[in-house]
Amino acid sequence: MAFRHTLRTRYSETGQDRVIHHPNYIIYFEVARLELFKTIECDINDLERMKIYCPVIDVAVQYLKPLYSLEDIVVEIKVGATTGVRFSLNYEVLREDVLIAKGTVSHCFVNESFKPIPIPKNTLKHLKELLI
Amino acid sequence: MAFRHTLRTRYSETGQDRVIHHPNYIIYFEVARLELFKTIECDINDLERMKIYCPVIDVAVQYLKPLYSLEDIVVEIKVGATTGVRFSLNYEVLREDVLIAKGTVSHCFVNESFKPIPIPKNTLKHLKELLI
Amino acid sequence: MAFRHTLRTRYSETGQDRVIHHPNYIIYFEVARLELFKTIECDINDLERMKIYCPVIDVAVQYLKPLYSLEDIVVEIKVGATTGVRFSLNYEVLREDVLIAKGTVSHCFVNESFKPIPIPKNTLKHLKELLI
Amino acid sequence: MAFRHTLRTRYSETGQDRVIHHPNYIIYFEVARLELFKTIECDINDLERMKIYCPVIDVAVQYLKPLYSLEDIVVEIKVGATTGVRFSLNYEVLREDVLIAKGTVSHCFVNESFKPIPIPKNTLKHLKELLI
Repeated sequence: MAFRHTLRTRYSETGQDRVIHHPNYIIYFEVARLELFKTIECDINDLERMKIYCPVIDVAVQYLKPLYSLEDIVVEIKVGATTGVRFSLNYEVLREDVLIAKGTVSHCFVNESFKPIPIPKNTLKHLKELLI
Repeated sequence: MAFRHTLRTRYSETGQDRVIHHPNYIIYFEVARLELFKTIECDINDLERMKIYCPVIDVAVQYLKPLYSLEDIVVEIKVGATTGVRFSLNYEVLREDVLIAKGTVSHCFVNESFKPIPIPKNTLKHLKELLI
Repeated sequence: MAFRHTLRTRYSETGQDRVIHHPNYIIYFEVARLELFKTIECDINDLERMKIYCPVIDVAVQYLKPLYSLEDIVVEIKVGATTGVRFSLNYEVLREDVLIAKGTVSHCFVNESFKPIPIPKNTLKHLKELLI
Repeated sequence: MAFRHTLRTRYSETGQDRVIHHPNYIIYFEVARLELFKTIECDINDLERMKIYCPVIDVAVQYLKPLYSLEDIVVEIKVGATTGVRFSLNYEVLREDVLIAKGTVSHCFVNESFKPIPIPKNTLKHLKELLI
């Protein structure tokens, strides 16, 4: 099951080549991810208040078509490989059902000293449910 | 006496109108300011380790000429009005001695609850020395 | 009459002091402004296709209270001083009707060589209507 | 042979988890790449003046250790797989010789309509020389 989040690209995200500058796609992924996190009772601000952080372990993006400013896009997330400690999310960026880019971002949870900790049980359960 | 910091504009800071996007000037101010802070024994990371923060109270910028990517600029800082609690810094952005933009940023120091505290004595002394 | 645009602050807009980093407010202003421009038949992408650009002449912001990530805010715009060549917009950032920041941004329109041109008549008319 | 570029991380690049926010590494890659491009007579601004653009086809980054604000890092670039149309660059981010992150970015050159064109001969020659 996919989670979908809609957003509008910003003028400030363009570059002098007139298209959305590539690092911003990773910010779009994050915007959508943190909305997903809210829906599975894993609000990032609640987590960080408990001194739990969710850093990125790796990122991969394929850019298929350019995006322009003030376009409405959908970021679609599917849950990928998940162990007890790390998990991957797969992303698609769509503009009117045309695939613009796709990517994968892997995460773990860490404590205040940036040492990995097990994925909180409830979060793991919710992630696995989304996997189906 | 002015503090001067040199930097090169980045491609990622341009917009689709091919010039450096205006919010980035305020980041240039901050880059230069934190270098100045280092030279007056007021390293921002040391301060924040002591749970002292230095938020911006107000910002004003006048944009005189466009800047392009990969240009070398100088950010010049002069200390402006300073009370026991807040202080202002005046900025000029120069490209080969041509004035590109100028601005003012005011700050105070706050504790962890974002309540204003007096400017640390040593910092105030250094700021006043720079004023001469 | 005020134009209002709602948006949610992003994690990527925070800094290590845990609040929204100050340059982002100017991006919020721009996001709201370009939505306003759309409603008055002055879409920035249409303009730029005609080689007309709308640079910022000056910016001023007062920061009254901190903002945090994933907060819903309203950016309210009122039209300020307007001549035949330049115009100012006044901004307020509100969180649940509490004033968080306010600011002013002045603009002109320029041609491809960045020389000022008169405000397009239709745009001027719409701006003046908003002034009432 | 590796190209090396030194830079200092910025306060504005941190997030509320107090470390450099992950999309910025891709900007560091670009800053270093455009410096490399200058040294091989492939200045991006010269290219774009000729209506040749150099978009990113894909990006992959592995994040090994956190980076903090105001740290001096080295971005090291090695030329990877190169065909007549696309080329990959491999990146390492180092802090005092400790590997912080590594990544790969692939590019092609395109014309004004974003259609791929052969890598300019001189650039291809220089890239292959760097490969040795």
